Amino acid sequence: MLKLLAGVDGGGSKTLALIANGQGRIIGKGLAGPSNPNVVGIKVSVKNIKSALIEALGGYQSKRINVAVFGVAGSEARDELSERLSKTIDFVEEIEVVNDSFICLAAGTQGRPGVVVIAGTGSIILAVDEEGKVIRAGGWGYLLEDSGSALQLGRKAAMETLRFLEKRAPSSKLVEKVLKKLNAKSVNDLLSSIYNSESPVSKIASLAPLVVELSEEGDLVAKRIVNEAIDELVSCVLSVISRSRFSSGHIPVVLSGGVFRGSSTYLNAFKLKLRKIMPRVEPMLLELEPAIGALILAFKKAGLLNNEVLFALIESYRKMEV
Amino acid sequence: MLKLLAGVDGGGSKTLALIANGQGRIIGKGLAGPSNPNVVGIKVSVKNIKSALIEALGGYQSKRINVAVFGVAGSEARDELSERLSKTIDFVEEIEVVNDSFICLAAGTQGRPGVVVIAGTGSIILAVDEEGKVIRAGGWGYLLEDSGSALQLGRKAAMETLRFLEKRAPSSKLVEKVLKKLNAKSVNDLLSSIYNSESPVSKIASLAPLVVELSEEGDLVAKRIVNEAIDELVSCVLSVISRSRFSSGHIPVVLSGGVFRGSSTYLNAFKLKLRKIMPRVEPMLLELEPAIGALILAFKKAGLLNNEVLFALIESYRKMEV
Repeated sequence: MLKLLAGVDGGGSKTLALIANGQGRIIGKGLAGPSNPNVVGIKVSVKNIKSALIEALGGYQSKRINVAVFGVAGSEARDELSERLSKTIDFVEEIEVVNDSFICLAAGTQGRPGVVVIAGTGSIILAVDEEGKVIRAGGWGYLLEDSGSALQLGRKAAMETLRFLEKRAPSSKLVEKVLKKLNAKSVNDLLSSIYNSESPVSKIASLAPLVVELSEEGDLVAKRIVNEAIDELVSCVLSVISRSRFSSGHIPVVLSGGVFRGSSTYLNAFKLKLRKIMPRVEPMLLELEPAIGALILAFKKAGLLNNEVLFALIESYRKMEV
Repeated sequence: MLKLLAGVDGGGSKTLALIANGQGRIIGKGLAGPSNPNVVGIKVSVKNIKSALIEALGGYQSKRINVAVFGVAGSEARDELSERLSKTIDFVEEIEVVNDSFICLAAGTQGRPGVVVIAGTGSIILAVDEEGKVIRAGGWGYLLEDSGSALQLGRKAAMETLRFLEKRAPSSKLVEKVLKKLNAKSVNDLLSSIYNSESPVSKIASLAPLVVELSEEGDLVAKRIVNEAIDELVSCVLSVISRSRFSSGHIPVVLSGGVFRGSSTYLNAFKLKLRKIMPRVEPMLLELEPAIGALILAFKKAGLLNNEVLFALIESYRKMEV
């Protein structure tokens, strides 16, 4: 019988579904609106995942998908989402919902053990070791700290600017840029531009590119903030590796998220510091879509993952992209 | 004509209303449930303020109050609250709603210029100088930082504990106590005990007393956290003083809030560091009810404040307390 497998990346801005046959050839691709349940709620999430899948199925719509793996952010909503998806999407036999960091890891390591570091608005660092054990560090949310995230970078930039406005810190290029970006002249302006915005967390995170950019230009305050962020990230990676079992050879460290993607300086500084402390690691920016990782996990779950399948997946994905 | 003035402290746990005659003798006291509009909403806030006032009026219920000053937390709701109070409470001629830090300052300085430092769950530092100008520092809310607040102390304690659980920091007495207090054994336990609680901010702030207590016992991690918090607070006080006009003599610095009240060590360490850097300041823990400050501001507004009135207010307040 013809096998069909699906991998879905359910992000905060879009949903991408990929469908492959049992030999690993990608035969369909579907796009829909956002489906991160923390952002759009479970109902919209289910609706957009279903519509991306249906589009990906194309002419195969009458067929059944054997195994589908969905990667979404957040852990709280995962069980409920899984239940609702199983009920709503009747053309999929087996559904698994995993944290989106797992599909990034799988896309970067092609399903092998390794470490993934996602630094976007928030951050998450985790390892899946040779025994399949999952070990995490950092990613403690907006009330504590997300190491190396845009929120951490932006928060420190905002605080430095507030200190300047209160005459507790000198001016700097960073301070000037933050004031301009937030269109603020006073402490009140700055605080209300953050707290009165639709998403205060995103507003703070939106300052991160300024910090990274100015750190590239040599601004001392920005450099300090970036270095602290990178140190925290490195410390998290060392933590997950020291608590895992990686017996031999190099350990792939897959990097993803807007902070890495937005700046080769940040990316390279992080790689350099990490390799200096731990020469065994092999940091690499994730180049493939995370949805490929979801597809790899679906093949794994179906017991169908092998080198030919991996080769076919990546080959057919590249051809689709053109 | 007989004058009546009212001062109200509208807090997050209770509302206290005091009524005085034109000579400054307090003739009534009323208590009601919380009326911080950020905590209970505007409707409940108005209801409880009204009921505290009616209780305070006692036999004088048919009389009209000339001027009433209300101190409440938060600035967003102040205008709306003021409007609703004016509509609902028809037995008061003139109403003014001010930030609760102003009534604390007035209670501590008896209406004279000075600085007030409130360190509770959040913190606020402000000066009212000789020209009546208001200058603030710190108090940037839960997404940035509230210098020297219970939230700041608790946040650092939680982060230190998370770092220990991730094998990125050594154990300490503080770490042990935090784990015990939050009934947590793992990162997941700790994060869910915070984020799944009714008020994550209060949950984090509830760790502050542990930090202060252990700092007294000499725990190095706790001492570092406390010192950083005190340095931040001192820096805020210096900031508001340097931006204000205090021409002569000593500057009263009124201290209030749970962090100071909970620990004489924290209080004394802060006083010591502040006086070392700025010998002109006179830090003092607020001993009177903030509602007295609201009453003082009401007398000021009515043009009736003088030394006899102040003396009478404090004397009659002390007699009521017995």
